[in-house]
Amino acid sequence: MIRRLTIVGVGLLGGSVAKAARARGIATEIVGVGRDPARLEAARRDGALDRVTTDLAAGVRDADVVVLAAPVLTILSLLEAVARVGGPETVVTDVGSTKAAIVAAASRLAGVFPLRFVGSHPMAGSEQSGYAHARVDLFNGATVIVTPTDASDATAVKTVTALWEAIGAGRVVTLAPDTHDRAVAAISHLPHLAAFALVDAVERFEPSAFDVAARGFRDTTRIAAADPTMWEEIFLANRQALAAGLEVFRQALDDLARLIAAGDGDALRASIARIKARREALR
Amino acid sequence: MIRRLTIVGVGLLGGSVAKAARARGIATEIVGVGRDPARLEAARRDGALDRVTTDLAAGVRDADVVVLAAPVLTILSLLEAVARVGGPETVVTDVGSTKAAIVAAASRLAGVFPLRFVGSHPMAGSEQSGYAHARVDLFNGATVIVTPTDASDATAVKTVTALWEAIGAGRVVTLAPDTHDRAVAAISHLPHLAAFALVDAVERFEPSAFDVAARGFRDTTRIAAADPTMWEEIFLANRQALAAGLEVFRQALDDLARLIAAGDGDALRASIARIKARREALR
Repeated sequence: MIRRLTIVGVGLLGGSVAKAARARGIATEIVGVGRDPARLEAARRDGALDRVTTDLAAGVRDADVVVLAAPVLTILSLLEAVARVGGPETVVTDVGSTKAAIVAAASRLAGVFPLRFVGSHPMAGSEQSGYAHARVDLFNGATVIVTPTDASDATAVKTVTALWEAIGAGRVVTLAPDTHDRAVAAISHLPHLAAFALVDAVERFEPSAFDVAARGFRDTTRIAAADPTMWEEIFLANRQALAAGLEVFRQALDDLARLIAAGDGDALRASIARIKARREALR
Repeated sequence: MIRRLTIVGVGLLGGSVAKAARARGIATEIVGVGRDPARLEAARRDGALDRVTTDLAAGVRDADVVVLAAPVLTILSLLEAVARVGGPETVVTDVGSTKAAIVAAASRLAGVFPLRFVGSHPMAGSEQSGYAHARVDLFNGATVIVTPTDASDATAVKTVTALWEAIGAGRVVTLAPDTHDRAVAAISHLPHLAAFALVDAVERFEPSAFDVAARGFRDTTRIAAADPTMWEEIFLANRQALAAGLEVFRQALDDLARLIAAGDGDALRASIARIKARREALR
């Protein structure tokens, strides 16, 4: 049970944390911090927040748990202010899509301030953004990755893990920040990059094809309707792991293309069968 | 109203044509032709077929409309036998995923036999295959591409168009065979190739990432669970258009990767916003 839960950034993810925490009664008071008073007020009237403020220090002061629910670069820019105002018992986590830079920045600050930070990344969300799309069940059954380091406070790790479980997560997985960034480059950032490039390629190659696109194309490129500012930030924040993953993707494409160009049906079928088996194991 | 409708290949697509034709009462007799008597018999008992045979000539003889519902290379291998046994009034179509090679072969045969062929490609289906997955509503609302040439018999074009509309198609679009092949390379074959390569890249780059894959990855790579034999054939049959589309895809990927590597957030965001707008126009 959390006395005061402060959510910084009441959009899709922050709003869903607030709604789920409210519905499951895990916090006595839920405070929302944001830049737009009208949007914050809408979330408060909605019942998800008890109190709202545009003053970060006022929102974070005396909080037991702070969730930074903003894009990665914004989280990086907020961390020091949060560290300065948070009390020694305040546990801080985030929902940023990359973890190495955020965790490194938090570790540096923890040497100066009494910051108890544990990075999180809930593997939930959608191509939509904003509080209007927040859902009480967004995290139901979802996998949440937490990225403590050797220096992380054990109680803070427990608190953050318990928070995600309490608001519906099906599974909380622990990964090192670097491994997290490689993993999300592979299964999230690279697929988004490929989806953007696919839509762009159709536009350049045969735009009339959009007119006959079937369900497969819509599914494969659904994520290309994601928020440009969010994805600009994610791609830049994780550019190193993404570049490494992209290189491997290009090799995988080239290997298939070579078999097709050579007309090597047997090897092509064997490759596809191996990949299909891997994909089916995911279900 | 068709007197005798013969379906060669009673799998996902052929089976769905049979079920929809039966449910909508558009054929007096529906005949199924295949290689496996047990599987044909199962479809007959299911009520979708009136008569089944493993003898192509027996099935096609006296048919009003023949639907070749097999993979592309099989359709190519069947065309001459169908042309030899079909009557002068028999209208033949197919469901093959590429059209230029099939239409060219049919045009050559039409110079020798009284073959009235019009190519079709229903943009429906799934990563599943086989009669067990056939659905009476598979074509409901679907786009079907038909690919007549200047030499095509006008009545045959009308019959084939009417058949698809009668079994539920939301829209029948006419494309030249070459344009069709470029269009499906862009919105079907290339996305499949990318999905296969994405799954393969995760396996090579960071296999532990499969464990935390969220909905986005599952959607983007759902089509990577497609049938290996079918996709071997499609990729090989359409290799020329696919190679051209792949080259454009590589350029689109490189353009985004260059902006990411350069840290050019403004241009990256502008590119993503342009692509997102294109994708959203698809809904």
